[in-house]
Amino acid sequence: MVHVETTAGSSLDGLFKAEGIAIIGASSKVGKPGNKIVEYALELDFKGEIYPINPGAEEIMGLKCYRDLEAIEGKVDIVVVVLHSDDCVTAAQKIAQRKDEKGDISVVVVVSGGFSERGDEEGREREKALLEPLMSRGIRVVGPNCQGIIDTYQGINTTFDVGKYKKGGLSVITQSGAFAVSYLMWADPLGMLGLSKFVSVGNMRDVSAIDLLNYFADDESTKVIALYLEGANEARKLIETAAEVSKKKPIVTMKAGRTELGGRAAQSHTGSIAGSFEMYKGAFRQSGVIQTFNVPEFYHTAAAFSKMPMPKGNRVCVLTVVGGPGTLCVDELITSGVVELAKLSEETKSRLKEILAPTANVGKPDGYIDMTGSVSETLHKEVFKIVLSDKNIDGVIYLTTPPAFLDEELLAKNIVSAYQSFPEEERKPVLSVLLYGFSVAKGRRIMEDADMPTLDYPDTAAQVMANMIRYSQYRSRNNC
Amino acid sequence: MVHVETTAGSSLDGLFKAEGIAIIGASSKVGKPGNKIVEYALELDFKGEIYPINPGAEEIMGLKCYRDLEAIEGKVDIVVVVLHSDDCVTAAQKIAQRKDEKGDISVVVVVSGGFSERGDEEGREREKALLEPLMSRGIRVVGPNCQGIIDTYQGINTTFDVGKYKKGGLSVITQSGAFAVSYLMWADPLGMLGLSKFVSVGNMRDVSAIDLLNYFADDESTKVIALYLEGANEARKLIETAAEVSKKKPIVTMKAGRTELGGRAAQSHTGSIAGSFEMYKGAFRQSGVIQTFNVPEFYHTAAAFSKMPMPKGNRVCVLTVVGGPGTLCVDELITSGVVELAKLSEETKSRLKEILAPTANVGKPDGYIDMTGSVSETLHKEVFKIVLSDKNIDGVIYLTTPPAFLDEELLAKNIVSAYQSFPEEERKPVLSVLLYGFSVAKGRRIMEDADMPTLDYPDTAAQVMANMIRYSQYRSRNNC
Repeated sequence: MVHVETTAGSSLDGLFKAEGIAIIGASSKVGKPGNKIVEYALELDFKGEIYPINPGAEEIMGLKCYRDLEAIEGKVDIVVVVLHSDDCVTAAQKIAQRKDEKGDISVVVVVSGGFSERGDEEGREREKALLEPLMSRGIRVVGPNCQGIIDTYQGINTTFDVGKYKKGGLSVITQSGAFAVSYLMWADPLGMLGLSKFVSVGNMRDVSAIDLLNYFADDESTKVIALYLEGANEARKLIETAAEVSKKKPIVTMKAGRTELGGRAAQSHTGSIAGSFEMYKGAFRQSGVIQTFNVPEFYHTAAAFSKMPMPKGNRVCVLTVVGGPGTLCVDELITSGVVELAKLSEETKSRLKEILAPTANVGKPDGYIDMTGSVSETLHKEVFKIVLSDKNIDGVIYLTTPPAFLDEELLAKNIVSAYQSFPEEERKPVLSVLLYGFSVAKGRRIMEDADMPTLDYPDTAAQVMANMIRYSQYRSRNNC
Repeated sequence: MVHVETTAGSSLDGLFKAEGIAIIGASSKVGKPGNKIVEYALELDFKGEIYPINPGAEEIMGLKCYRDLEAIEGKVDIVVVVLHSDDCVTAAQKIAQRKDEKGDISVVVVVSGGFSERGDEEGREREKALLEPLMSRGIRVVGPNCQGIIDTYQGINTTFDVGKYKKGGLSVITQSGAFAVSYLMWADPLGMLGLSKFVSVGNMRDVSAIDLLNYFADDESTKVIALYLEGANEARKLIETAAEVSKKKPIVTMKAGRTELGGRAAQSHTGSIAGSFEMYKGAFRQSGVIQTFNVPEFYHTAAAFSKMPMPKGNRVCVLTVVGGPGTLCVDELITSGVVELAKLSEETKSRLKEILAPTANVGKPDGYIDMTGSVSETLHKEVFKIVLSDKNIDGVIYLTTPPAFLDEELLAKNIVSAYQSFPEEERKPVLSVLLYGFSVAKGRRIMEDADMPTLDYPDTAAQVMANMIRYSQYRSRNNC
C-alpha cells in the first residue's frame, strides 16, 4: 500500500470551524456578488460573527459594516475577498499584517478572478503576489477564482449563488463553482441532495483536491465525495490519495478536458493543465474512483450513494410497469459489463404470479419483471416486499410512469412503506425512475424525502446502479 | 435511388380523419383505463362524436352510453377496443359485421394486451383471430397492446395516459406507449414540446412504422418524427423508407434491444425481434436517420428539431457564463467528430471585447466565449446579437446558471428578444443550457414558449447540436 501523507484534521480544520468570518468587498448594493455573499452567509445558522468590510457603508443586511480588517475586534478565522483583482494583493498584505499582529486568521477565500487563469504573465505574477504573504504565514488559501466554502452543519457559507440548503451526506470538491452550484440548484426542487460540505477550489493554488479528499475521508458527516476536476499539478499524488480514500468512502468524479480543445477551455477557466484523459481514466478505475462520463450520470450517482446502501453483489432486478423503458434499462445494465440480471428465486416467481395479472411478465428474461399497468398502489407495496426479500437480488431498478389511474402520492407512500419495512441492515439499493419527471414532482418529493432516489431516465438509472456495483467490488477486493 | 411504395394519403387517412369514435369497453368507474380513455377523448377539441359502449352503463362522462356497436346510428370511423384479451376476438367479429352492413369503420385501435407478446401459442392464435376479420375487410388495425392515436389538430385521442396537449410540429411513432407518453409528460411542465400526431403501434401487426413514416413525410403539420423502435419485421423496407423520408424531414430514433437480454425484454413486451443493433446503427447512419444513444439525447434532439432551424454548417460557438460546464460542452462537441468550433470573426472579437469585462475570455480556444458572471441581462442581449450576426457561426450553445444576481425572467426575455430581432430566414439554431433545472423554471418557460429549447446538461446540448449537424449534412449530400 502506498503511504499517503495526510494533512487532514489539522490545517484544514479552519475551513469548517470558525468563530468569525470577515468579508472584504462586502457590498450594500443589492444584486452585487459582494452583497449576495453577506445575504447567503446569514441564511445558514452560523453561530459565530459575520463582519462585512466596506469603507463606504455603515451597515449591510442589518450587520455593522467595518472600515477595514483592523477595525474588527473579535476573532476572525476566515476572510473572504471579493474585490476587483487589482485590489486583492493589497488585501492579502493587510490580512498578513493582521495575522502577524493578532494571529487569528487561518483561512482566506479569494472569490475574485483575474489571476493565472488569464494565461498571461500579469495574471501569474498577480497570483504569486497574492499567495506569498498568506502562505508564508501558514494561512490556507481557497482559490483564487472560486466560490469558496459551504458547511451546512457549521452554518458557514462564502458563496454568492447558494443560500440555505438541506443538510446531508454529500461533500463536494469542485474546480468549477458554477458546475457544483448547478448540481445543488438542479437537485433542490425535489430535495434530491443533502449537503455536508462544499469547497469550490477554483485555481486550486493552495487548498487542493488532495487536501480535501483526505479531510473528507475522516469527516463524520460526509458519506460520499463528489469531485469535479479539470486538472491537477500532482496527478500521481491525487490518484494515490483517492485510492486510499476510496477504501473508506465513494468518490464520484467528472473529469473535464477529455479533448485537446476542452483542455484549452479548462486552462482558460482555472489555469489547469488537463493532462491525459486516458491516463486519468485508467488510474481512476484502478483506484476505485467512480468516474462518470455524462452529467446526469454524475449527478445521480453521487445522489444515490448519499441516500442508499451499497449493493452487496451485482445481481440486479428490473421491476417495471412499462415495457419500453424497461428494455432500455436492461440494455444499459448489460452494456456496463458489471451487472448480471438476478436469477429470481422460485418462491419469488410463484408469489408474484399469484398476485399479478396473467399479462404480467415474471422473469422473461430472468431478473426482469413487467407488472404491466394493471397494478394498484397497494399491490405495488406487496410486490416490492417480495422482491426486496429475495436473497438472489442485490439491487432493484424500479420504473414507472405512473399510469394516469394511479395516485402518485399514494403510490410513493406505499413504496416508501415497503422499503422501510426492512431493518436498515437488510436494505438494498433501490433506484426509482419516475418517467414523468416534474409532472409527478409530488410523488418524487415524498420518495426523496424518505431518502429513496428518483430519476428521469431508465438508462441513467442503469449507469448509476453499475457505478454502485463497481465501487462495491473495489471495496470487496480491498477487504474493506 | 430505391423506390419506396407509399401507402400514405389513402388508407391511413382514417387514423386522423374521423367523424365518430366508438370505445368498446368504456367504463364508468373512475380510474379504470376504459374511463380515462373517454375522459381524455373529451379533453381535445374533437368535432365529431364519441360513442362509449358498455351494456351496463347509461352514460359515461356525460355522454350517452351504447349497449353495443350495432346500437350506434351515426358514422363510426374509429373503434377503440379496451377489453380483457379474451373478449377482443368477439369484438373484432362484431366490428367486421358492422363493416359488412354499414361500411363505415376504417380503423380499429386495440389497446388490450395478451397477444403475441405473451410468447406462447395461445397469444399468437388469439392475435391471428383478432386480426383476420378486420384486415380481410380492409380495416386498418393499430396494435394490439398499444395506446393508439393522438392528433392534436383533429382532436382525436384514444390514449388513457395523455389528456390535453400543446399543438406543435412533433409526430411520434412508438412501440412503447409508456415511453412516448413519458416523453410528453416529462416535457409538459416547461412546455418543451408541441405535438402534432402520436401513434403507439404496440405489437405493430398492421399499421407499422413504415406506413407512418410515409404518412408523416407528407403531413403538413409534422416537422420532425420521433421513433421508438424495438424491432421490425421488414427491417430493410423500414430503412429504405426512412432514407427517403429523411430527405424531407428529420427522423430521430431510439432503438431498444442493443443487447441480447434487452432484446428478450423487448420480445416479451411487443413480440418484436430486435435484430442486430449494429446493423440498424450502420443502416440508420447511411439513411440520415438520427439515432440517439441515451434518453435525454433522444428527448432533446427531437424537441430541438421541432423548434429550431437547421444549422447550415458545422461551426459552433459555445457562449457561456460558466467555465466548468462550458469545458464539458466543448469536450462533447469535439468528441462527436462532426463539429468544429467556429472561428470568430475579427469584428465579433473586437465588439465583444469592447463590451465585456476584462476577465472575460473571447476566443480561447477559438469559438469559445466565457462572458464570466459579470454580465447584466441587457448585456446578454447585446452579446447574443453580436454572436448571431457572425457569418462564421452556424449554431450556438449558450450556457448559464443564471447567477443569483440576474433575474431569470428578465434574462430570458432579453435572450428571446435578441433572437427574434433576426428575420426568420437568418436565424441559426441556439440551444440554451439553463443549468439550474427547475430552479429556473420561469425563465425556461419563457424561452420554451418562444420556441427556444432549454436543456439541463451541457453534454446533452452538445450531442443535440452534433445530431442537428449530422442531419443537415445528410440533406446537403442528397441535395435536398
